[in-house]
Amino acid sequence: MEDLSLLKDGVIKGEVRSIARAISFIENNPTQAKAILKLLYPFTGKAFILGITGPPGSGKSTLVDKLTPFLRQQNKRVGIIAIDPTSPYTGGAILGDRIRMQELTADEGVYIRSMATRGSLGGLSRATDDAVAVLDAAGNDVIIIETVGVGQAEVDIVNLAHGSIVILSPELGDDIQAIKAGIIEIADILVINKIDKGGYERMEGELRLMWEQFDTDQRWKPKIVKTTAVKEQGIEELMQQIESYHQFFLHSETSKKKRLERSERRLREIIQQYTLEKVYYGNLNQQKRDEYIRKIAEREMDPYTAAEEILRGIRF
Amino acid sequence: MEDLSLLKDGVIKGEVRSIARAISFIENNPTQAKAILKLLYPFTGKAFILGITGPPGSGKSTLVDKLTPFLRQQNKRVGIIAIDPTSPYTGGAILGDRIRMQELTADEGVYIRSMATRGSLGGLSRATDDAVAVLDAAGNDVIIIETVGVGQAEVDIVNLAHGSIVILSPELGDDIQAIKAGIIEIADILVINKIDKGGYERMEGELRLMWEQFDTDQRWKPKIVKTTAVKEQGIEELMQQIESYHQFFLHSETSKKKRLERSERRLREIIQQYTLEKVYYGNLNQQKRDEYIRKIAEREMDPYTAAEEILRGIRF
Repeated sequence: MEDLSLLKDGVIKGEVRSIARAISFIENNPTQAKAILKLLYPFTGKAFILGITGPPGSGKSTLVDKLTPFLRQQNKRVGIIAIDPTSPYTGGAILGDRIRMQELTADEGVYIRSMATRGSLGGLSRATDDAVAVLDAAGNDVIIIETVGVGQAEVDIVNLAHGSIVILSPELGDDIQAIKAGIIEIADILVINKIDKGGYERMEGELRLMWEQFDTDQRWKPKIVKTTAVKEQGIEELMQQIESYHQFFLHSETSKKKRLERSERRLREIIQQYTLEKVYYGNLNQQKRDEYIRKIAEREMDPYTAAEEILRGIRF
Repeated sequence: MEDLSLLKDGVIKGEVRSIARAISFIENNPTQAKAILKLLYPFTGKAFILGITGPPGSGKSTLVDKLTPFLRQQNKRVGIIAIDPTSPYTGGAILGDRIRMQELTADEGVYIRSMATRGSLGGLSRATDDAVAVLDAAGNDVIIIETVGVGQAEVDIVNLAHGSIVILSPELGDDIQAIKAGIIEIADILVINKIDKGGYERMEGELRLMWEQFDTDQRWKPKIVKTTAVKEQGIEELMQQIESYHQFFLHSETSKKKRLERSERRLREIIQQYTLEKVYYGNLNQQKRDEYIRKIAEREMDPYTAAEEILRGIRF
């Protein structure tokens, strides 16, 4: 085991290599990850965590790329985590990602990392939260979590960020009702992107109508910002809305509430991770595990009974 | 507790009310769900499980709606589970869903159910697998799992179905590379939908090129089918490809492998569910839990140490 105290110091100083190493532990080495996260945890809690989600094709990456320089102008250090649909064949790197990294990381105040999280113990959300903790301890003022997909896990992650930006594009088709049902409601700021292609008025109207129906007594009314990110149009207004939300967040009860919700989620997920490590991969050897799996597959035993048998007598 | 043996009989006879009740247990009542699933499990393992995913706007629902009558013509009973992004405000019903239900369920051989799974213990995938087990025991020949989002959890679910259909639409924009990285590789059949709008040739070419790069020694070569679902074009060819894949699946090693992988996933997820029930909601009373959460939120304790403290001495 390498000297984690040195690694900790490196992360806290914001050294890129140390940060990268700590995040790699999260992806690949649970034991080291736990140890380093324990050391880093007291240094977390300062960053503003901004979640960005929206369907594929809505332009999330472009928006983040255009937004980042505005944050840098205010001398804010920016950490970006792109949640990556891991490919079973390739390991899941997003093709365009390396190009983005080169452009943005020419600037020392920006750290961008795509996370391949398939199969990590405790799930996507645990791994993302751990990576946020590393970037937080590293002194980033703003941490952007950008999801590629719009599944439930991704919506949950963004929902527990301090602020959520949801991006839609008017050119998206008939499933829009479904998207709305799931993700519109988590938005603190809703971006209608690619408005240069027209046809956004109806969408805007529908969204406003939908929001009015939500019986919310929150002080913050979700804002709609219209952008054409690729042409850098609307980014400044978006930036203003983010600042205005940030100010609201800092002085509201939402801040405390989200902090508690995030803490609860972390506790629950880490308990799950420990259990899998101990019960499933620890106590149960490969041979026994295979035997249970075979029995379940062949309907000789149901999985609930199997789980009960495996857990019986286990002691932590 | 109601008479679960009667409920079991009802499900096995394919009675709609019993099926609906069993799935409601999965969503809302873990204790009853476990009990009924144990009873039903020996009757499962017969259905062909078909996963369908694709980005919002690609036309998944329409495709499923058009495909189902073809399956019915062959006298196959069809169960459809639509995985629903649950809204924190509304509880998450997809707006168009009720209309679909009315149309398809006029036919007694079709059962369609959208599942709101946010927050269910053990997660989205555990709840979906449980619902599949109910529909399987109920005598459905084909069970279609249709995801609304394309997040990692959704891709994982579809990947472990017996066969996976991925739907894309050429009109989707610049994030297509990202989609490819995550979901193209799980497709047994890839549908390019909405080809009446043109512009699909490039997409088709890129997809073929991408597949050639995968170093796969599988016997089944993924197929591309071009459709315009809304006009019922290409559905018959899709149907043929599904049958052809089904035949391959029944006589291949893939069948055994997927069965084992599904069983493994179920075992792991159910162990996680049991642990949360016991450790997090059982042993730890609300007050103690809140105290841990507060300490984590205020950085007095890191979540890893908290989880270790909570687990210490726990005995199943």
